Amino acid sequence: MARNKHPERTRARILDVAKRLFLTKGYDGTTMQDIVDSLGDLSKGAVYYHFKSKEAILDAIGEEDQSRHDPTAINDTGLTGLDKLREAFRRSAADNEHMRLMNMAYPAMHDPKLLAANLKVWRTQVADMFEAMIREGVADGSIDTAYPREAAELLALLTNYWLVPTFYPATADELHHRVEALAAVCTGLGVPILDKDLIETVSRGYTALI
Amino acid sequence: MARNKHPERTRARILDVAKRLFLTKGYDGTTMQDIVDSLGDLSKGAVYYHFKSKEAILDAIGEEDQSRHDPTAINDTGLTGLDKLREAFRRSAADNEHMRLMNMAYPAMHDPKLLAANLKVWRTQVADMFEAMIREGVADGSIDTAYPREAAELLALLTNYWLVPTFYPATADELHHRVEALAAVCTGLGVPILDKDLIETVSRGYTALI
Repeated sequence: MARNKHPERTRARILDVAKRLFLTKGYDGTTMQDIVDSLGDLSKGAVYYHFKSKEAILDAIGEEDQSRHDPTAINDTGLTGLDKLREAFRRSAADNEHMRLMNMAYPAMHDPKLLAANLKVWRTQVADMFEAMIREGVADGSIDTAYPREAAELLALLTNYWLVPTFYPATADELHHRVEALAAVCTGLGVPILDKDLIETVSRGYTALI
Repeated sequence: MARNKHPERTRARILDVAKRLFLTKGYDGTTMQDIVDSLGDLSKGAVYYHFKSKEAILDAIGEEDQSRHDPTAINDTGLTGLDKLREAFRRSAADNEHMRLMNMAYPAMHDPKLLAANLKVWRTQVADMFEAMIREGVADGSIDTAYPREAAELLALLTNYWLVPTFYPATADELHHRVEALAAVCTGLGVPILDKDLIETVSRGYTALI
């Protein structure tokens, strides 16, 4: 195999091509050979050199997608903590590609080990991230809550687990109603993130997962 | 081995003796031999005939404890749906033996398979049970909520998972604050189960799990 002078560029190309195939043919409908064929100029061995399996490619696509949706990256000057949180939810739910990628990863979570690992991330890193944004809102006066940590933990758990029809099966109407219930939960905690507009956007986003 | 004419009675005696040992010496500190010794008149083989392992004994104790705490069994005439729910929480949290048995079972849930199985029970059977009680309250006018199913799902998930320090580590003060947050969540959903008294009782109950 010729020495690869730009491994990062090759890696990025593989992820790009695989993501396009996953989104058009579905994850299950795409083989490693399809990915090799679509790349055109790389051997199967070269692709396997970068990713040991199709699952590893999906994982890497998921990580890239996650970092693109890191809400702490929302830095528009002038936004309050509450508005940043709302913007984070809006961007994530309105990004059709993001929701379809999430959808692709969710069936894997029927594997108890993966589910347990994700639950751990939701109750630690993701909760920490939400807490930082809520505390920003408390500091700038846009959020008035006695429960910054609790609200953060619940936001992380409920948006990643409870809203997801893979775990809690639901019709589109039931999902809409569930998002309205989450809005009431947030209001009860003094962190009224989900206004009327956002309820619609978030409902539509999760409905794509049915 | 002499034929056992009263297998249910023997089974109940084994569970009784084992529970007493688990509660005094701890689950890890108790061996099958300790259980045999305490019974006095049964061989090790006879005990193993009824339960194939110490885990199986703990499981059976847990099932018995669960059925004793089936909140649908609260049938005192005159109680509204809301009061039945409150009574269910009060009985469960104030029952020191019940909380200590729960505590014994929780470490096992670091096993992802067990955790996934429990999460499934919480989002199906336990949620169904809470929903029935909430709908009873809606029918008798003691509860006014637009979210009977959602409140039931959240009560099941949050009381079994989020309040539990095995999963979400907490000091006694943090647990108390978390129970207050759950009270705000319930109020936000129109199902104000946790009044001031119950916040204290439930906090004390979960603090025993630290």
